[in-house]
Amino acid sequence: MSEVKDRLAALREKMREYGVDIYIVPSSDCHESEYVSAHFRAREYMTGFTGSAGTAVITMEEAGLWTDGRYFLQAEAQLKGSGITLYRMGEPGVPTVPEYVESQLRPGKCLGFDGRVMAASKAQEFERIARKQGAYLVASEDLVGRIWPDRPDIPDTTLFILEERYSGESVDSKIARVRRAMEEQQADIHVLASLCDIAWLLNLRGGDIPCVPVTLSFLTLTREICVWYVRPSIVADEIRDYLSDHGVKIREYDEIYKDLESLSAGMRVLLDRKNVNYRLLNSLPESAVAIDRPNPTELMKAVKNETEIKNIREAHRKESVAFTRFLYRLKTGATDFTELSAAEYLDTCRAEQEHCLGQSFAPICAYGPHGAIVHYSATAGTDVPVEKESFLLVDAGGHYLEGTTDTTRTIAMGPLKPEQKRMYTAVLRANLHLAHAKFRKGATGYSLDALCREPLWQLGVDFKHGTGHGVGYLLNVHEGPNAFRPRIPAEEAPAELVPGMVTTDEPGVYIADEYGIRLENELLCVEGTSNEYGQFLEFEILTLIPFDRDAILAEEMSPEEIAWLNAYHQRVYKTVGPYLPEKEREWLKEYTRAIFS
Amino acid sequence: MSEVKDRLAALREKMREYGVDIYIVPSSDCHESEYVSAHFRAREYMTGFTGSAGTAVITMEEAGLWTDGRYFLQAEAQLKGSGITLYRMGEPGVPTVPEYVESQLRPGKCLGFDGRVMAASKAQEFERIARKQGAYLVASEDLVGRIWPDRPDIPDTTLFILEERYSGESVDSKIARVRRAMEEQQADIHVLASLCDIAWLLNLRGGDIPCVPVTLSFLTLTREICVWYVRPSIVADEIRDYLSDHGVKIREYDEIYKDLESLSAGMRVLLDRKNVNYRLLNSLPESAVAIDRPNPTELMKAVKNETEIKNIREAHRKESVAFTRFLYRLKTGATDFTELSAAEYLDTCRAEQEHCLGQSFAPICAYGPHGAIVHYSATAGTDVPVEKESFLLVDAGGHYLEGTTDTTRTIAMGPLKPEQKRMYTAVLRANLHLAHAKFRKGATGYSLDALCREPLWQLGVDFKHGTGHGVGYLLNVHEGPNAFRPRIPAEEAPAELVPGMVTTDEPGVYIADEYGIRLENELLCVEGTSNEYGQFLEFEILTLIPFDRDAILAEEMSPEEIAWLNAYHQRVYKTVGPYLPEKEREWLKEYTRAIFS
Repeated sequence: MSEVKDRLAALREKMREYGVDIYIVPSSDCHESEYVSAHFRAREYMTGFTGSAGTAVITMEEAGLWTDGRYFLQAEAQLKGSGITLYRMGEPGVPTVPEYVESQLRPGKCLGFDGRVMAASKAQEFERIARKQGAYLVASEDLVGRIWPDRPDIPDTTLFILEERYSGESVDSKIARVRRAMEEQQADIHVLASLCDIAWLLNLRGGDIPCVPVTLSFLTLTREICVWYVRPSIVADEIRDYLSDHGVKIREYDEIYKDLESLSAGMRVLLDRKNVNYRLLNSLPESAVAIDRPNPTELMKAVKNETEIKNIREAHRKESVAFTRFLYRLKTGATDFTELSAAEYLDTCRAEQEHCLGQSFAPICAYGPHGAIVHYSATAGTDVPVEKESFLLVDAGGHYLEGTTDTTRTIAMGPLKPEQKRMYTAVLRANLHLAHAKFRKGATGYSLDALCREPLWQLGVDFKHGTGHGVGYLLNVHEGPNAFRPRIPAEEAPAELVPGMVTTDEPGVYIADEYGIRLENELLCVEGTSNEYGQFLEFEILTLIPFDRDAILAEEMSPEEIAWLNAYHQRVYKTVGPYLPEKEREWLKEYTRAIFS
Repeated sequence: MSEVKDRLAALREKMREYGVDIYIVPSSDCHESEYVSAHFRAREYMTGFTGSAGTAVITMEEAGLWTDGRYFLQAEAQLKGSGITLYRMGEPGVPTVPEYVESQLRPGKCLGFDGRVMAASKAQEFERIARKQGAYLVASEDLVGRIWPDRPDIPDTTLFILEERYSGESVDSKIARVRRAMEEQQADIHVLASLCDIAWLLNLRGGDIPCVPVTLSFLTLTREICVWYVRPSIVADEIRDYLSDHGVKIREYDEIYKDLESLSAGMRVLLDRKNVNYRLLNSLPESAVAIDRPNPTELMKAVKNETEIKNIREAHRKESVAFTRFLYRLKTGATDFTELSAAEYLDTCRAEQEHCLGQSFAPICAYGPHGAIVHYSATAGTDVPVEKESFLLVDAGGHYLEGTTDTTRTIAMGPLKPEQKRMYTAVLRANLHLAHAKFRKGATGYSLDALCREPLWQLGVDFKHGTGHGVGYLLNVHEGPNAFRPRIPAEEAPAELVPGMVTTDEPGVYIADEYGIRLENELLCVEGTSNEYGQFLEFEILTLIPFDRDAILAEEMSPEEIAWLNAYHQRVYKTVGPYLPEKEREWLKEYTRAIFS
């Protein structure tokens, strides 16, 4: 902890040198990425808190860390002795970061942060606060970078082209579609900073961020020219030729700021202030007109094309085979697993599958009470043996050339209490109800959320996370704009569900200090009936991994629910069975046999 | 129709006289009331179209009428031969009224309407269009009034005080609550034009609008003074004394415009631009600051207090007794009913109940194919005999001192086809699913809507109206802000469901030219479990009228749904039975006996 104190002291010295009174250190990179590479973990460096979400604010007298409910326990432990105050976001009476900054900022004082690692929309809120308080704002200095001697580099990783048999659409066609969207907005230029959007558009994948196969870069598109700003060192000749063939020019990563500064007067610039960093926005000439809209690529990449859909089914078939083999080991007497070794074994099973490119996120393998910690991640310090009772919750996914997966199964490791079975059955019913929803076109994931939660609400139970998120194609396992959520955030228009969207269905129940249950399948939105009432939509379940019949109380299920479950298990056996060794196939047949009420 | 043509010619002459090129005639009174008294039916006078919703736009060359899907057939018939073009709102390619006006309005031309009968929010949209087109706007002239020689007067009707044993809260307490809300908004004065809000606030009821017991009036409230603007001729001495006792001053109805003009400089004025008419808004001094928020009374009157809830249960008991007696006649061999005489008989049954003040809306009594016309209203010209087959759909409600009701039952008048039973059962299941929903506090009627529609969606069926609306207490049978709706309108924040709100639950199926089914109960939001997950809410079903067992296919229902139905029928028999003559009680016992799958 004395390390953190030393770093705070060094930062405060720099703050004095630059005349900054309050300095904000966010968790982000220059692209508002959900996961960031080690180079960008400035907030972690300054506080010692390793959680994925959090913001540090440092004044001359105080240092505070803001994080959300998922991380309260972890942050408490990691901040101990550092002198840093933990601000528990969302708790009554706890100020937000902007509220805190406003309360501290006096007239004539100076607020600072690195404008490259904060979204323009957030930064503009601080801009308003500074103006209101009669204070200054300095967003040009990366003060943490100046006191971080051993800061990790951004390693040079390999880029590869995602061939059209995987992507299903050429770069030319994608760029043309974006240009049409620009025309609709009467935009002269589009600035793209979201790494997944760029990777999708160029049909390129990289390795700059753990678990998200993308490359740090920016992109600008006018009606005639497309420029990709990237570290030239990682662009092999083959990629250079490929891009040149598609009319994409390459420039140095950092050149985008200067290029934006020298835009001709009065240009209409399409950008999403929630994704574009503050310095990019500030680089625009004053005469530019910013059109603040979601990137057109956001919806385009969420709606999977036919090739992608065919591939995604294949990716799920592979992941389901791997996960089922893992289940077989767990359910047929493996005695030597801990949380970590079980997760490793699942990785081994996945690695056997063709075209596998590794994990799509750090898996959650949580035994017993650990299952109740929604974002638990086993470490050498927390790892426990998987015993012959209670539940093991496993939430994991893989990247394949054919797409990305995200699945959760909760496994009865031995005898369960009746209440545990009751809760498992309720979670299963919740999962099935959403998966079998039929609905009129025009519905959003907000209007369907209650279909999933209702079986739990009937028992006076709920879960405090979203019901589902969009899934990228060999990109971030979490993507928008589709999601199942109970409430609509004030600033976000609900996204209509559209055929081709892939969204997870992951209800849960978490009993603190006892166990956690979550059951997650991925759902593909597909067309249903079309008649005088309009177009109906429904879901195809992509994940084909058995539920645990040892945890199911058939008497708590309606005949319709039992029919859904039996039909699903039939599909699992038919699809996965042929890829298993005989003994495992026999076991799966038995394990997926029909249930009767 | 030559009458309508003459009126259009007369209006155009006035338009020339006043230099107006385009004149808009809305359907509203000065209070944006849903129902309006005959005096305000200017759009009906100008077009001959008698539907409740519609807007006429008259230019020197053209006349158009805009109305929504409920009224397409009726408007077609009523406009025939008038030369007025029907604009079918919501159909592809049909411009909205503002779009049409914008396309017609040339620089230097003049757009006109009577600013008293248009909400400020709508009028400001036309203001923007006029400015954009370089045209003028005249909102001070009621041109229809100038050519309408036999315009109906506003009749003097009786006011009465709703005693505290009915209202449950004194005027003083209500005014104090509104003043606290004004303080929160830092408002110096609040302008109230919504008639139901005023009636609720003053605990007064009147009779100026058919089916809505309110009085045409405005009200202003400052921190010290409350002024009620009303026709003095209808205020009896007793009412005058009552208001004086509660510190409410009375002024002439029209004086409000002048009074607002002479407000002191810089006052902060709380008003809802959606409810306050354009002339009221324009009467404010330029220095006034308009705070555009929903009236605080809107939510206050939607959340019923304990006295109101106790009374409302009693109102529903009475309405249910009347409706059940009506059902008895229909189901036990009455052979002589037509739609109109059946509706009259229901009125007779209701009139026998104590404290009944008549219909809360014009009832829908629709036999066979008429049931498929969602807003059908039988007239001498459309009336048909109720035969011994198919469905009779009856949607009706009453006003009582104890509250207002709204119920729909669909009655099997004889043998049904299997498909008719299948649809009836699906609508019943939809109704039951919403009624038995449990949910976390924070949910809105938008997030629960799908629970109701899902059983219908599963069959590829939907209905094109909202699932439910709030119900006033001896006020408008339709009130906000609570509602069950599939989509959130862009301009409206979803209202959280709160204990004490009363909302209808009225799914339906409509097969054009064949039959319609709708089943409507009113639901009271009540508290459920409170535990570590938070506060749960659920519903108490207020309506206690049997569903038609002759139309139910038990085999299409889950055991849980059957248990819900049987428990409901038990409650119906226990509550309503004691108020019926013996023969009818015996019939009800048989008619509400348990169903088995």
